[in-house]
Parts: sequence; structure tokens; C-alpha cells
Amino acid sequence: MSDRTDIKGTIGILTSGGDAPGMNAAIRAVTRAGIFSGYRVMGIRRGYQGLIEEDLFEMGPRDVSDIVQRGGTMLFTARSKEFMTLEGQKRAKATCDKVGIDYLVCIGGDGTYRGAMDICKLGVKCICLPGTIDNDIACTDYTIGFDTAMNTCIEMIDRIKDTEMSHSRCSVVEVMGRRAGHIAVNVAAATGAIDVITVEMPYDIDKICKKIIDQKNTGKTHFEVVVAEGVGHSEDIAKYIQEHTGIDSRATILGYVQRGGAPSCYDRVIAARMGCYAVELIGQNEANRVIAVKNTKLVDYDIQEALSMKKGYDSHLHNLLASLSL
Amino acid sequence: MSDRTDIKGTIGILTSGGDAPGMNAAIRAVTRAGIFSGYRVMGIRRGYQGLIEEDLFEMGPRDVSDIVQRGGTMLFTARSKEFMTLEGQKRAKATCDKVGIDYLVCIGGDGTYRGAMDICKLGVKCICLPGTIDNDIACTDYTIGFDTAMNTCIEMIDRIKDTEMSHSRCSVVEVMGRRAGHIAVNVAAATGAIDVITVEMPYDIDKICKKIIDQKNTGKTHFEVVVAEGVGHSEDIAKYIQEHTGIDSRATILGYVQRGGAPSCYDRVIAARMGCYAVELIGQNEANRVIAVKNTKLVDYDIQEALSMKKGYDSHLHNLLASLSL
Amino acid sequence: MSDRTDIKGTIGILTSGGDAPGMNAAIRAVTRAGIFSGYRVMGIRRGYQGLIEEDLFEMGPRDVSDIVQRGGTMLFTARSKEFMTLEGQKRAKATCDKVGIDYLVCIGGDGTYRGAMDICKLGVKCICLPGTIDNDIACTDYTIGFDTAMNTCIEMIDRIKDTEMSHSRCSVVEVMGRRAGHIAVNVAAATGAIDVITVEMPYDIDKICKKIIDQKNTGKTHFEVVVAEGVGHSEDIAKYIQEHTGIDSRATILGYVQRGGAPSCYDRVIAARMGCYAVELIGQNEANRVIAVKNTKLVDYDIQEALSMKKGYDSHLHNLLASLSL
Amino acid sequence: MSDRTDIKGTIGILTSGGDAPGMNAAIRAVTRAGIFSGYRVMGIRRGYQGLIEEDLFEMGPRDVSDIVQRGGTMLFTARSKEFMTLEGQKRAKATCDKVGIDYLVCIGGDGTYRGAMDICKLGVKCICLPGTIDNDIACTDYTIGFDTAMNTCIEMIDRIKDTEMSHSRCSVVEVMGRRAGHIAVNVAAATGAIDVITVEMPYDIDKICKKIIDQKNTGKTHFEVVVAEGVGHSEDIAKYIQEHTGIDSRATILGYVQRGGAPSCYDRVIAARMGCYAVELIGQNEANRVIAVKNTKLVDYDIQEALSMKKGYDSHLHNLLASLSL
Repeated sequence: MSDRTDIKGTIGILTSGGDAPGMNAAIRAVTRAGIFSGYRVMGIRRGYQGLIEEDLFEMGPRDVSDIVQRGGTMLFTARSKEFMTLEGQKRAKATCDKVGIDYLVCIGGDGTYRGAMDICKLGVKCICLPGTIDNDIACTDYTIGFDTAMNTCIEMIDRIKDTEMSHSRCSVVEVMGRRAGHIAVNVAAATGAIDVITVEMPYDIDKICKKIIDQKNTGKTHFEVVVAEGVGHSEDIAKYIQEHTGIDSRATILGYVQRGGAPSCYDRVIAARMGCYAVELIGQNEANRVIAVKNTKLVDYDIQEALSMKKGYDSHLHNLLASLSL
Repeated sequence: MSDRTDIKGTIGILTSGGDAPGMNAAIRAVTRAGIFSGYRVMGIRRGYQGLIEEDLFEMGPRDVSDIVQRGGTMLFTARSKEFMTLEGQKRAKATCDKVGIDYLVCIGGDGTYRGAMDICKLGVKCICLPGTIDNDIACTDYTIGFDTAMNTCIEMIDRIKDTEMSHSRCSVVEVMGRRAGHIAVNVAAATGAIDVITVEMPYDIDKICKKIIDQKNTGKTHFEVVVAEGVGHSEDIAKYIQEHTGIDSRATILGYVQRGGAPSCYDRVIAARMGCYAVELIGQNEANRVIAVKNTKLVDYDIQEALSMKKGYDSHLHNLLASLSL
Repeated sequence: MSDRTDIKGTIGILTSGGDAPGMNAAIRAVTRAGIFSGYRVMGIRRGYQGLIEEDLFEMGPRDVSDIVQRGGTMLFTARSKEFMTLEGQKRAKATCDKVGIDYLVCIGGDGTYRGAMDICKLGVKCICLPGTIDNDIACTDYTIGFDTAMNTCIEMIDRIKDTEMSHSRCSVVEVMGRRAGHIAVNVAAATGAIDVITVEMPYDIDKICKKIIDQKNTGKTHFEVVVAEGVGHSEDIAKYIQEHTGIDSRATILGYVQRGGAPSCYDRVIAARMGCYAVELIGQNEANRVIAVKNTKLVDYDIQEALSMKKGYDSHLHNLLASLSL
Repeated sequence: MSDRTDIKGTIGILTSGGDAPGMNAAIRAVTRAGIFSGYRVMGIRRGYQGLIEEDLFEMGPRDVSDIVQRGGTMLFTARSKEFMTLEGQKRAKATCDKVGIDYLVCIGGDGTYRGAMDICKLGVKCICLPGTIDNDIACTDYTIGFDTAMNTCIEMIDRIKDTEMSHSRCSVVEVMGRRAGHIAVNVAAATGAIDVITVEMPYDIDKICKKIIDQKNTGKTHFEVVVAEGVGHSEDIAKYIQEHTGIDSRATILGYVQRGGAPSCYDRVIAARMGCYAVELIGQNEANRVIAVKNTKLVDYDIQEALSMKKGYDSHLHNLLASLSL
């Protein structure tokens, strides 16, 4: 498709699964570092589904101008049922053959990784970047979007606390992270929550109620409990607390607000680093790799290996809440 | 209580009903303008209930330092069942007699006004300030907190739209305003909603679905519908839209986040003006008045008269959505 | 140029002079309301210079998607020396003739208005919208961008006050408004400044120093003085205050940050209203008009008349600072 | 001073040097974890000067309520000339003896560390926490306040870019970090700067001008250069760029805004962790230690050793700008 005989190859980029702030910064980095290093770059819209449907366009440096500060993904994202079939994967591979895509950079979560592994088997060299606000990918300390999502949460909870304080209430705040309490535990520590409820640690609602009553007796007038999505219904928890403590309690589900917004500095910088690192791996002709943060350094793993890892949980921070919420 | 023979009298301040950003700016203005004009000022905690329970303290200029930028109310707020009885009102009056409160500045909504009228009858001179995010007080064009709440809403919706756009979804966003669509209609116009559902105007969900389908056919990829709290269940509306348009639709209830946060410039300034105006009225020995904004000017009405007025609705702006959301 | 025989005419839109948040919301409203009402709409880039150089494109409803929340202007802006000559104006008129522009909507300040008047004389029907953060246009109570700029200022000053308070300093904050103190006086009232220095009111730096010393003696530990750009050098004022009060004083010039950012709800809504109103005026075949806000209502004036008006200043608010900063 | 015979000892807390967002979260953590672990806690106002002047008070858990989200330091900060003398240090020690302070937690930068070492020699057991927005402390990967300051910078630069883009200008943005380019290099990468000027790396203004011209020729319309405070005058740099590229260039000094504001989630959490860790060290009867982040883990060093370390610089990120700004 390209008439330039001097290009080293063609990199396709796609985002898949839930969007996360910083994905645009990653797209920009892959695009510019790719072109800078001598590759042609194609943007694929709507993830693997767009690859199947040949919904793509060549990207120059100007196509990624002024997106570094935008939430969401300029390449859109979608879940593709068709791509879960071998038939769909072959169609995606056919697009790669047709438009000359040699390498694929796939930004997303575990599901995205599995998709990359599938098309890798058909002969497209894939590099994956971790992009999800939940930070629930086992192989990496950090996923693009996590920092922004937490900052959005605390900004919203700071506001909720203004009214909580004025009315001497208890707020039950439900944050995202269906399978993971990473957002919840950090946000709880950052906003002065009396306790946090996550899937990783057992909890006893009656102990939380007792703690609230004990602290009320020492002069604390307002309370906050953070709940990770999926552990329990925040409305029910608020009702239970109100009934068992006598303190007016209200639930707020922060919802989709957490997924958008201008990315934080950290998310933009880590996305830029990862995007450049992906182009480096491509330069070394690597394939089937995921990029990860390990002890502040960028490293890469085989996708299969990455998917078999088990995610830790910061139980130390969780336990610090006992003293912090005194 | 005061040994200063030169003071003109004592002003008590309280906030009552739901808190609103800017209440602190109003408290500060009444306190400082009051002291500046020769009054002693008492802060009453937890609204009328605090007056009954004598939960109050003298305030100097430094007691209201560094609160102009804080959401909520430093005097706390509460709903008082006891104050709804004549017995309770007499106890509140007894507190005023005991600590020497001659004037009462009451910041809140309609319920606060009714309470002020009651205690006025017992001989305490009351001036009311409109403080509620809903802008649902009939006599005034504006209530303290409304501007901040709308800015909070659009900031959150801007974020929701990042993910809405990335996934080509329809967002159904529920905003506060149980009896009033003022937040909803402005926020809808400000964020590019395809339509708004408020209690003041009839709506037809099937027409909204048709509009979404028509616009999808002209290339629009993502959609937003704003719903005022209490008109319908946002979850049900999202489900209906999804079923009837085929577009993935998600509901978000913005919730208590809308009530807190640092007040906007407008809210701080209007609160300051109103607080100073209240002290002016007190200087003229006025009583039983509510302060209101009428055509950008501050005016005041008899409380009874104010409560009998009927609130308008900006149907013109509502109707502009038809062209704005093209 | 258009093959549609049923269009009522063609509206060109341009932004000129300094950009202001909300200009995009106005462009969107003119575009969509224009198309909705049966007009063809052309976007002209870089103000009058772009008109001279025929730098324009037809805009459909989708061309203004997702801009309502963006600061700046998607049509760019520039100052055109060429347009100040009759020669340049004739070239601009020639473009209008060539591409069929019947009406021109010009968004900007006084300079923009004068340009519109010039090209009006050559036969293009112009409607002007007030867009400048300074609120320094005589005929209107409000200019698009003013509210956002003030909110940006107070957000930044709230941050400055954190460090001012921690160090017991005096902050001298310089805000925009070369010819006008509207931003300064509101921002001063909203952030608890001890005083404000604007071009509209005389000031005595020694009196300000005395006030600072007096208040320090009553326990105030940190201070803020707001200065409108162009009245004095904030660095010099800070130095003078430090020398004459002994309080560590620091100047901050807020600068271009004040001109950008997502527009506030008010700016988006007023821009939408004004854009729709412009299309209404065009429908009535009006020309040479400027749209203005008068007592919360939209009105329109002859450009010449508008330019001859004299802007007021809120000296009442200025004077309230004496008690507010107690 | 305390009548409780069961307390393990008394911890004094002070903040010294420039304030940084997150200091309050650290104060809160030390206070609550201290009390939780059986210590009495005293807050010392205005750093070492307050210790000399016995400006302190006992803190209970409620004294640190609702400060986790506030910028600045509730204990105030100051530079103390007196404390730089042995005489002053002895007076500070005398205060510790008088009120029974056994341990001192000192939050600040290098200067704060040197002060702690001095008083340590006189027999007060000191633990230091790194608190400065500049991240310029050699022994630690991270200092409290750095993340918030960078987020504040990018938020402001995003706004500046709206007007930069609208006018096709070059912005020269000066950020804090007198001795260190850590803020500058991250912020440059995060906001799409064409280049960054820091003290750690040589730069050639003519090469920057050439890059701007080259990129203008490929269609880039607006440009940003980030300058670390103290490397060069941003005004001069802007003037030079304008003269040598022909592109309208404007300087903005972000100033003290960078030092304040609600701390980010990361800053609140790391401050909480460090505060709890300080209490752990006290429990182990450690003295003369500084707490540091090394590869995401908390560690501690001897103060002398920490002060002798040499800070690295992220030249890798600096060099990535060449491709990122394509």
C-alpha cells in the first residue's frame, strides 16, 4: 500500500475493552515514535472489530496533535464477538495482509491481551500495553488510567464530604473496580474514609458500624465508607449503617465519571514511555509481548506468561486505615 | 451577654435545609459587614435546632477566615422537627432572649423561610437569604449554590462524554432538582445533550428515541440525555432507549457530588452581596424579609409574599435544544 | 457554490481578536441554529484575515461536534492589518461575493465590531457577538468568556492562598483586564482580598499598607491584594508592601492561563443563546447589529451606537471590600 | 506535662522550608498513627522557629480532621535564622525538654534535614520526611508534593494551549524547580512540548528555533517550550524565539500557583504511608533517619548519608521528547 520503499514496516494501533484516560497519549507516542523510527503507522478504529471491518487510516504526526490531554480514545473502542471466533481472527489477519500491517500495538486489559495472543498465532506481531483504570492486570504494577481515575474519585469525594460534614452524615461511596479493590483502598486512604470494603479482604459490616459509633463518641461528626463495585450494594450498606448506628447515611455511586477526563501527568508520561518502548520492541522484532511496570522500570513479558500471573493487593495500606481513620 | 454598650444589637446567623456552595461566603459577609456596621454577631450551629439547643458562639472577623472558598456550611445544617411545633419555636425565641439575639439571618430554601416567618411572629427580626443548588425559590432569579452545582455537573458530564464517545454510547445523566428542572435544562444546553427531561415540560420518550435514530443516520455517534431527578428513573430510561434504538445506553446519577465543592466566583460574589445587603436591611430595622435577585439587582420581599410567588421555567432554553442538538 | 436551491442564504462565521472560552459554543450554536433554520453555514478561519485569504469551509452539524466543552476557538483568530485598509476590506467582500456569503457573524471585542461595521458598509450583513474575557464592551452587561476567566482566577488564587497562609505572606496577584477592572474586582471579592487596584478607582498604596498592618495587629496572618493588569507593576507593588509592612510579599501574574480552559456552564449557555439569537436576527434580515445582555435579557444595538456607549464599573462591589476584608 | 503514665513518649511534628501539598496528610498520619501506637503528639507551628519560641499544642485525632484534602501546612512553616546558630538549637532543645518531646518528625527538604541533624546531636530523636514539590532530594525517588505540582502545571498548560492554538503561537512556560528539572521534563512530556530547558542537560536555543521552523513547515501550527526556573529568563527566551522564527511567542511564569491546591491521590497516600512509617521507626527507637522511596518501597537512611547522595535526572525521558514532539 505504501510507495515508500524505505519504511521498515507498518504498525497498526488499536484500543480495545473499556477506555481509560491516557490511551490517547499512548496512541500519540506509538504513532510519533513509530514514524520517527522509520515505520508507517495505521490507526485502527473500534479495536479488533475495526480490524475485521478494515476501519483504519494511515496516521501522520499531525493526526495525533492535541490529543495528549484528552480522555477516552480517539480510535474508539468496542468489544468484538466476531473476533472471539477463529473466523473473525482470520478476517482480521486478512486485513493486516491486505493493508500491510506487520506489527500490532494493542492497548487494553486482559481481554485485549487474549485477542492479541490469538492474532499473534496467525502471524501478526503483537505488542500489548496495559490500559484500564482498574489496575487489575496481574503482570504490571501499573495500568494506564489508574492514577487519573483515583484523582477523579478523590475530587468527587472531597465534594461529597462538604455536604456530609454540613449534615453530620455517613457517606457510602461506591467506586469502580469490579474484580479489584485497588482504586477503593487508595481512595479510602486519600479521603479519610473510616473503612473500605474490597473483594480482596474479608469485612464485617457490624464491626464498621461499631467503629462508627465508637468514633462518634470521641467527637467525630461525619463518616465515609468506600466500597469497591461488585462487593456489595452501596445502597444496602448505607441503609444498614443508618439502621445500626442511627447516623443519617447516603450512598453515591461515582459511575462512569471515573472513566473520563483529562489524564493526570503520571498517566500521560507513563503512556508516552510505554508507547516509545513498544516501538523499541518492534525495532528488535519482538512479538507476543506485554509491556509492564515493575519497580518503576518498564519490562516486558510473553503474553501467555503475563496472563498466568496473579495480582497482589496492598493489604498493608488497607490495614493502615485502622490508625489513619482514628 | 455583651459588655460593650456601644453595639447596635446582636445578629444571629444560621443555615438550614440542604447545604449549598456559597453559604460560607454568605456567613462571612454577614459576620464581617455586621461587625463593620457595629453589631455583635453570633453563629448558630445546625439551623433552628441549634437555636433551640443554644448551640451558638460569638463570631469575630477571624472566625470566618479562609472559608470563602469552602463548600458546605461551617455552621452545619439540620432539619428540626421540634422547630415545626410552637413549643420548639418558643424555645428558640427563649434562646434569642437569653443571649440577646435581636436579628436573625437565615440562609436556606422555602422551608427555612417558613421557619423564619414563624419565629418572626414571636418577635425576632428575620432576614432570609436564598441558599439552595436547585434554584427553586419562586421570588428570586437566583439562589446561592446554583452556579457551582451546574459547573460541577458539566465537569462530570464532560468526563462521562469521553467514555460515551469512545464507546459510541448514549448516556442518561440524572441531575439534582427534585421539584425543578433549572439545573437540568442549563446543563443539557451546556453539554450538548440531545434532549432534557424535566418536570416543567411534557416529554415523549419515543420521540427522543426517534431523534436519536434520526441523528445516528446523519452520522452522530454518541448521545446524551439529561434527566431531572424525580421525573423518571434514569436506569429505566437508559434501558428503554437501548431497547428502542439499539444503542448501548448507560445511566449515571450524579448524586451528592453536585452539592459540594469550592463555590464558583459568581456564587461567592452574590453571597457576599446578599450578606452585606442583609446587614443593610437590619440597619434599616427591617424584619420578615427575604433577599432576592431580580434582573441582576438585589431586592427584598415580605416572606409571606415571597412564599406565595410562582417560579417560572426557561422553556425558551428548553426549546433551543431542538436546534442546538442537531 | 451550493446546489441546494432551497437554502435561505449563507452565513459566514469568524472569531477575531483575543480568544475567549465559550467562542466554540457560540460557533456551534450559530452553525446548528443556522442549518436548522435553512441556511448554509461557512466557517472562516483566522478572522478577517482568513476572509481576505478565502480560508474557509462549509460546516455541517457534525463539524461542530464535541467542541462545546473546549476553550479557544476552532476557527482560530488573528489580528489583520490588511483588513484595516479599504483595500483589505474589499478583498474580504470579494470573498463573500465569490463564495456567496450573505451574512457574517463576527465574535470578538470592540476591534471586531469596528471591522464588522467596515465590511457592512460594503454590503455584507453583519451580526456581532461579544466575546472577550475582560467584559470590557460598553453595550453589554456580559461578554462570553468572562465567567470562565474569573473562575480560573479564583481557582488559581485559592491555590496561591494555601502557600500564602502556610508562610504568613502577602500575595499580590495580577489578573487580566488591561482597560478594565471587572475581573479584578470580582475576583478580589471572591477570594478574600484585602484590597483591589483597578484603573476605574483611585487607590493609595500607603493606605493599603496601613490596612495590612492594622489587620495584622488584630490577628490576620496572611493577605492578598488583586491588581488589574496595566494599573501598576505587581512586582513593584509587592516590593513596596514588603518594605512598608515588613510582611514577606510575593507577586504572581496569572497570565495566559486565564484565557483558556473548558468554558463554565454560564459561558456555554449564554454563547448558545446568543448564537441562536444571531440566527433569529438574520432571519429578520437585520444587519449591522451587536447582540448584548441587558438585565439578563438579550437585546441588540446598531454597531455604531454600541461603540459610542460608555462602560460602567461596579464601584459598589469595590467598596464592599472594606467590610468584607475585615 | 501529660498525666498519662501509660504513654510511650511524646512526638513533636513540624513542617519547615517551602510548603508542599500533602504535608497535611503527613501531619495527620503521624498524629493518628502516633496516638494509635500509644504516643502523645504535639504540633509545632512555624518549623524550628516555633520550636524555639515554644509555639506548640497537643494534638488529638480531631485536630487533624478534614485536612487531608488541603494544600499548604496547618502547622505553618518558616525559615529560622536563629536555628542556624548553636544558641538557637539549644533553645529548641530546651523547649523539647520542657514540654517533654522525645521524638521529632520534621517534614521538608534538605535544609530541614540539616536542621534535624543539628538538633539530633543535642539529643532529640529526629525522623525526617521528604516534602517539597521540586523532587530535588537526592536520597529519595519521590518527595511529597511533586505529583500535585505536576498535575497543577499540566492543568494550567492545557489552558494556555487553548489560546496558543487559537492564535498559532509559541508558549514559553516557566515551571518551578530552581535546582532541578524534574517538574519541567515530566510536564513537557505530558503537555506535548517541543522541547524542555533544564539545568541538568545542555541546550541550544538555536536548535530549538530550527526545530520549530522545521515543524512549522510540516504543518504544526502552535508550539510549547517548557523552561525550568533559574535556567534562563522565559521572557528573553520567548523574545529570542519570536525574533528567530517569526512566530508570535509569549512567556508565562506559572509561579506560586504550583505550590498550593488539594493534593493528588498519590501525594495523600504516600504521605500517609510515610507518616505511619515514621511512627514505626520511632517505635523501634530509631533516630537521625530520613524516610525515602526507593523502587516504590519505603526505606530509611541516616541523615548524613542521605545528604551526601547525588540526585539523578531522567535524561531518558528528556531524550524521548525528540520523537514525541514530532
